[in-house]
Amino acid sequence: MDELDYRFLCELASQLRVDSVRAAAAAGSGHPTSSMSAAELMAVLLARQLRVNVENPADPANDHLVFSKGHASPLLYAMLKAMGVVSDEELLTFRRRGSRLEGHPTPDVPFVDVATGSLGFGLPVGVGLALTARRLDRLPNHVWVLCGDSELAEGSMWEAFEHAGHEGLNNLTVIVDVNRLGQRGPTRHGWDLGAYAARLGAFGWHTIEIDGHDPGQIDYALADARATRRRPTAIIARTCKGRGVSAVEDREGKHGKPLADAEQALGELGGPRSPLTVPMTPPASQGAPYRYAGGPLVLPKYELGDEVATRTAFGDALAALGTARGDVVALDGEVADSTKLETFAKAHPERFFEFYIAEQQMVAAATGMQARGWTPYVATFAAFLTRAYDFVRMAAVSRAGLCLVGSHGGVSIGEDGPSQMGLEDLAAFRAVHGSTVLYPCDANQTARLVADMAGLEGIRYLRTTRGETPVIYGPDEEFPVGGCKVLRTGGQATIVAAGVTVHEALAAADLLAGDGVSVTVIDAYSVKPLDSPELVAMATATGRVVTVEDHWPEGGLGDAVLSALAENPVPVRKLAVARMPGSAGSADQLRDAGIDRTAIREAVLALLP
Amino acid sequence: MDELDYRFLCELASQLRVDSVRAAAAAGSGHPTSSMSAAELMAVLLARQLRVNVENPADPANDHLVFSKGHASPLLYAMLKAMGVVSDEELLTFRRRGSRLEGHPTPDVPFVDVATGSLGFGLPVGVGLALTARRLDRLPNHVWVLCGDSELAEGSMWEAFEHAGHEGLNNLTVIVDVNRLGQRGPTRHGWDLGAYAARLGAFGWHTIEIDGHDPGQIDYALADARATRRRPTAIIARTCKGRGVSAVEDREGKHGKPLADAEQALGELGGPRSPLTVPMTPPASQGAPYRYAGGPLVLPKYELGDEVATRTAFGDALAALGTARGDVVALDGEVADSTKLETFAKAHPERFFEFYIAEQQMVAAATGMQARGWTPYVATFAAFLTRAYDFVRMAAVSRAGLCLVGSHGGVSIGEDGPSQMGLEDLAAFRAVHGSTVLYPCDANQTARLVADMAGLEGIRYLRTTRGETPVIYGPDEEFPVGGCKVLRTGGQATIVAAGVTVHEALAAADLLAGDGVSVTVIDAYSVKPLDSPELVAMATATGRVVTVEDHWPEGGLGDAVLSALAENPVPVRKLAVARMPGSAGSADQLRDAGIDRTAIREAVLALLP
Repeated sequence: MDELDYRFLCELASQLRVDSVRAAAAAGSGHPTSSMSAAELMAVLLARQLRVNVENPADPANDHLVFSKGHASPLLYAMLKAMGVVSDEELLTFRRRGSRLEGHPTPDVPFVDVATGSLGFGLPVGVGLALTARRLDRLPNHVWVLCGDSELAEGSMWEAFEHAGHEGLNNLTVIVDVNRLGQRGPTRHGWDLGAYAARLGAFGWHTIEIDGHDPGQIDYALADARATRRRPTAIIARTCKGRGVSAVEDREGKHGKPLADAEQALGELGGPRSPLTVPMTPPASQGAPYRYAGGPLVLPKYELGDEVATRTAFGDALAALGTARGDVVALDGEVADSTKLETFAKAHPERFFEFYIAEQQMVAAATGMQARGWTPYVATFAAFLTRAYDFVRMAAVSRAGLCLVGSHGGVSIGEDGPSQMGLEDLAAFRAVHGSTVLYPCDANQTARLVADMAGLEGIRYLRTTRGETPVIYGPDEEFPVGGCKVLRTGGQATIVAAGVTVHEALAAADLLAGDGVSVTVIDAYSVKPLDSPELVAMATATGRVVTVEDHWPEGGLGDAVLSALAENPVPVRKLAVARMPGSAGSADQLRDAGIDRTAIREAVLALLP
Repeated sequence: MDELDYRFLCELASQLRVDSVRAAAAAGSGHPTSSMSAAELMAVLLARQLRVNVENPADPANDHLVFSKGHASPLLYAMLKAMGVVSDEELLTFRRRGSRLEGHPTPDVPFVDVATGSLGFGLPVGVGLALTARRLDRLPNHVWVLCGDSELAEGSMWEAFEHAGHEGLNNLTVIVDVNRLGQRGPTRHGWDLGAYAARLGAFGWHTIEIDGHDPGQIDYALADARATRRRPTAIIARTCKGRGVSAVEDREGKHGKPLADAEQALGELGGPRSPLTVPMTPPASQGAPYRYAGGPLVLPKYELGDEVATRTAFGDALAALGTARGDVVALDGEVADSTKLETFAKAHPERFFEFYIAEQQMVAAATGMQARGWTPYVATFAAFLTRAYDFVRMAAVSRAGLCLVGSHGGVSIGEDGPSQMGLEDLAAFRAVHGSTVLYPCDANQTARLVADMAGLEGIRYLRTTRGETPVIYGPDEEFPVGGCKVLRTGGQATIVAAGVTVHEALAAADLLAGDGVSVTVIDAYSVKPLDSPELVAMATATGRVVTVEDHWPEGGLGDAVLSALAENPVPVRKLAVARMPGSAGSADQLRDAGIDRTAIREAVLALLP
């Protein structure tokens, strides 16, 4: 590197540092010291390696930059200013109401693919972006991820290191900003770069240990990373938190606070300067990303009265959807034989991704794929999707569109016992912002919903059942999201069920008819959004409601129905799983949980005047 | 090892294999092939290294055995039969209704500390048990964990490997049953034992690679593991899934199914035999586990009208509780300065555990600690507790008692933005079986609830607020769990609030008084269990209810109130956070979310006739 380049990079790093301090000072909060440690790292990346078309953040040939340490947002925004994407005026709106420059980055900001701020999320998404470039888009763009050192304590990071190392993703580079200080105090490994290098090397990564404040070393490492074949690269950089300002440099207790004396700090950083704008090198044009061809949608059809598990219908329908839509991809947590995602895998092996038992990496990869225009379906047991709950939360903050499918919902799975039963999934996914929650009861309904959910936005969750259930709908019936099906009409009570309990509710209606009691039965397959108008109408007409769900009593179908009726209430009795189940057959489980036909009948009779 | 010992171990392994096959055959389901691969490993452990007092599973000197691969439960139950703890008759009740021998182990079974079956949970709990022995109980018992190879894809395993390696837990041994076949097919690393050894070695573990079907090698490795100083040991054992039965040995598609021809298999395994009982070596008596002294409880007291953050009161109260109760320990996810757990850390450093940013390991360690009689308090941001949601679920299946404290609840945190806001925590933790959910609004209330939650059972969750809130209760007021506080009494509507919205509700009541409208205001600090009788009484008396919560609309306080009123309904309007927030000050956030005093006033006025 020549002297001029070197001086430019030093000057750019100073500017990034100064702007980080200024942004946090203007906001009165934020993380300037965590930004200052990585200023040279990001300055050199920006000026020498990041290839983006500044005019077009959506250019598919662009490199990607993920701030896995999302709290270093002032540094990211300072970079965007240096790129000419954000004005100095906007920079100083950092963390203000209405500003897109939030405390932690979101995709409202140009060149940001996903929201970060929950540590351990950004790198796994970066793995997803790199996988997408390599195996789906078939483009040579590079993914750069800036991580903190504290963050390496998160297990999700090691799911990502393992996956990327195993895939040999040489289009992925992680830059670890080892500033040795976490939020509360020193990290586990301090400045022991070798500790990180040994771990990452064992996971199949190329590692480079450098002084993270030396532009020459950084430049060498970044170029080496881009040139490395067959392996992802980790640049492990020794840095100082708060670098450049003596009041905070390498000091504890300075995390997540604006500098006490910003004026003095700015003086120490070199005072006012004429702003630099980096002439970004655009990526070489690579043509359009690869897309698979589509065709007409030919969903599977099931015969009325046949017994088919909804998980089977899910697999069949997704395979059909994959034929119809080239953008559909599928992600498995090493249970495709149980979830029936294997049907898709056999039909479209090139769009099937095995993540082994690493649910967080699986959901994060899907989040990366959707950011590049693919439509990912993620499937595992409903119970095990809870392992990735924080990632689903962050996907929602990322305005991501994901189709999540949880199999083995509820006690009806039978003998495997409670560790395998999804009994909180409806509550958990209802409580994700902007989510859709679907719970079909038969195979034709499942097929339709599996296809329709591709066209929705945000987080969509569909729950399937392990055991076989009778087909009660014809193959041409439609099931609009936000609708419901009125399966029986009777005047004395309304039973609201979904999934496996629909069949119990129908049986209960038959029992009640024998008692001389006529009831309405509603199949609430769209748990969120729920068909409030229809529910209010039926509840008002019948004067009382029984809800029944294969789920804990809190936050599921019953609560959703109560919420729909909140301003037009009638008495509601909620049936749900109230005791910790053990092992037993499916019918015994439903009976023991008090959610079978007998329990429903008794609940209706108890509510009658 | 002499010939007699060798033959005994081979015979014992065959018996474990035979009993695993018989149990699964009797059940018609289960995981015999995953049991068969580890039969020699467990036979040798049982006969040569496991030190337990068979008469007393609660003996504090006992070694611990955790089946992290919980699906190998037939093998565990076969071991218990060989120990004389389970009869052959009971063994054959495997997976039957009412049997304690469930599909996956739970603590209903003697010598089982925690439920397993969600892969990646058992080892982190084992780390907690080993930490407890070393740093709390001060006993030399050993913790043995049997893991699957597929399971090593879970990030939580690497949180555990890192934590144990860093702590140098030489009282912990992991036995990895590398049978190369997962549920769906081959694992990522197959029989590449070196891939595991390199990774574990880099994480500071002593590793031994062996043939997992050779009793001699196993015996050497187990003895070496027990004798190893300063480091935990991983025995990485090459095995065959379904070992010993040609129809299933090392074959794909044989996971999680009973053997098709059990008769033939039993013949191949050596046919009928006279059952062996292993004379277990009891542990050397080690005296009682160490316990810290306690004393009278002197909770902090706050002055009415002062402004104090409930997170501050949590830290103060927990430090006081730690002085009163020697069994209280605290676990941090590297945010103790934010959650204010640091107050406890300063007062009781020897009972404070730093887990860095590894929430799953933190919750699992707490689960291990409570299994040994300690009372753990786990604290991080409410948003980041969702990272460990599956582990909390499994803790509930384990009948574990945990005190979880989530700080920074809701939009009221202000500028940091949505990635840092706990907005689904009330829903998520309400939907945990047997849980308690508390959400105090002032410092004195917080202090009481923090102390009282120690005496409860099951999963207890308490949410704290980042910002300061006025003290509205005197220090001697009591707050029974399951109760509520009626702060204002008025006839025209009931406002139900909790935490930060209590203060908005009180302000709204003042505004409404100016409108000539008198309202009841309820502080529902006990979100679960909710004070249903009082709520029904007040709702019925006033005829309408407004709920207001700093949480998404689903599954939180509003749904809890609706559920309480389900059979005695009145019209309810739910106010909650309906839009994705950005950065803004706390007051702006509450206003933008529609949960401030103005919104409450408007909601009440809209409901009035």
